[in-house]
Amino acid sequence: MARPQTDIEAGRQELLDIVEGMIAKRGAVDITVNELAAEAGMSPSNLYRFFENKEAILEAAAERWFAPKIAIMEEVVASPLPAREKLYQFFVKRYRLSCEQFEADPRQFQSYMELGAQHFEVVRGYVDFGDHYLAIVVAEAMEQGHFVGLTIDETVSLINQMVHVYCNPEVLVFLAHRMSEDKLAKIIDAIFRGLGEASEDTGEVAPMKLVS
Amino acid sequence: MARPQTDIEAGRQELLDIVEGMIAKRGAVDITVNELAAEAGMSPSNLYRFFENKEAILEAAAERWFAPKIAIMEEVVASPLPAREKLYQFFVKRYRLSCEQFEADPRQFQSYMELGAQHFEVVRGYVDFGDHYLAIVVAEAMEQGHFVGLTIDETVSLINQMVHVYCNPEVLVFLAHRMSEDKLAKIIDAIFRGLGEASEDTGEVAPMKLVS
Repeated sequence: MARPQTDIEAGRQELLDIVEGMIAKRGAVDITVNELAAEAGMSPSNLYRFFENKEAILEAAAERWFAPKIAIMEEVVASPLPAREKLYQFFVKRYRLSCEQFEADPRQFQSYMELGAQHFEVVRGYVDFGDHYLAIVVAEAMEQGHFVGLTIDETVSLINQMVHVYCNPEVLVFLAHRMSEDKLAKIIDAIFRGLGEASEDTGEVAPMKLVS
Repeated sequence: MARPQTDIEAGRQELLDIVEGMIAKRGAVDITVNELAAEAGMSPSNLYRFFENKEAILEAAAERWFAPKIAIMEEVVASPLPAREKLYQFFVKRYRLSCEQFEADPRQFQSYMELGAQHFEVVRGYVDFGDHYLAIVVAEAMEQGHFVGLTIDETVSLINQMVHVYCNPEVLVFLAHRMSEDKLAKIIDAIFRGLGEASEDTGEVAPMKLVS
C-alpha cells in the first residue's frame, strides 16, 4: 500500500505549489475545493482524493509555511551550543528566514499573515511547538545556573515577551527598519544577565560577540 | 476674543462625545462631516465651524484617546523616582490604562485600534512623543551609571522592543492572558541588570519588589 500513499503525497505537493501561487495572487482569501480544482485543471471529485475540504487545504499550506521554521528549532535544540548561543540561534535563524521571506515577496508574506490571523487555530499549533522547544533550551540553561528563582514556564513566557518583535511576523512588517541581529543579540545578553535572581557569575560573563 | 474660542472648544468636546459613540457603535469606519452633522442634529455648514473635514474629526478623536497616556508619561518623567522605578511606572501605568480601556469596552477598543492602523500617521505622533519621553528617562538612568556603552537612541530602541507587548494595544488583545504587571517588573529588572556592558553594581542591585 506504499505506492498510492506516495502518489497522493506527490499530488498534494504539486497542488500546494498551485495554492501558494493563488495565495500570492489573490491575497488572504479562502480557497475552496472547487476553485483549486479549476486552477489545477482537475475535477473536484478528483481533488477530494488529495484534500477533504478547504480547511485541509489551508492546514497543508500552513504546515508547509511553518516546516522550515520547525526544522530550524529542531536543529538548534539538538546542537551542542552553550545555552546563551543556543537561545540566540533559536531566535535569530527564524528572524533571518522571516526577513528573507518578506523581502522575496512582501505581498505573499502579508497574505500568509492575514490568513494566519483569520485561522489562528492553525497558527496555535506552531506557537505551541515553539514554546515546547524553548522550554528545552531554558531547562538546559537552568542546569547551567541561569534564571535562578524562576520556573521554566515563567522563563519561557518572559523570554517570549522580550523577543516578541523578532518572532511575530506581523510586527516585523512595520518595525523592520528598527530591528537588527545586533539588537537581538543585546536582548539575549540582557535576558541571560538580567532575568532571575542575580547569580554569582552575573558580573563576569562578557556579552556575546556574535555579530560584527 | 477669548469667548468664541472657548465656545468652539466646548462645542468640539460635545461633538467628540458623539464621535466616540459612533466609533463604538459602527467600528473602524471613517466619519464624514455630513454623518457627524446628522448625528449631532446640526447643519453641515454649522459643523464646519468645529471641524474642517473628516481628517480633523479623526485627529481630534485620536488626540482625546491619547491625552491620558501623554499625561501619564509627563507625570512620570517629572516625578522624583529613581531610574528603575521611573521606567517601570512609565510602562506599567499606560499598560494598566490600556487593560482598563479594553475591559470597559472591548469592541470600542478594537475599533480604535483599527482606526489607528488605517491612519497610522495620526498614531506616529504619539509614538514619537513616547520615544521623546523615554529618552529623558534613559538619559537620567545613564547619569546614574546604567546602560554603559550604549547610546541613548540604541537604549530607547532596545527597551521599546523588550517591552513591546506591554505598549502595543493590538498585541495586548491577544496576549492579555499571558501578561501581568509582575512580568513587566521582571522585564524592567532584566533591562537594568542586563542591558549594556556589565557595570560594577550589576550583582548588587536587588530586583524591584513593586508588585505583591
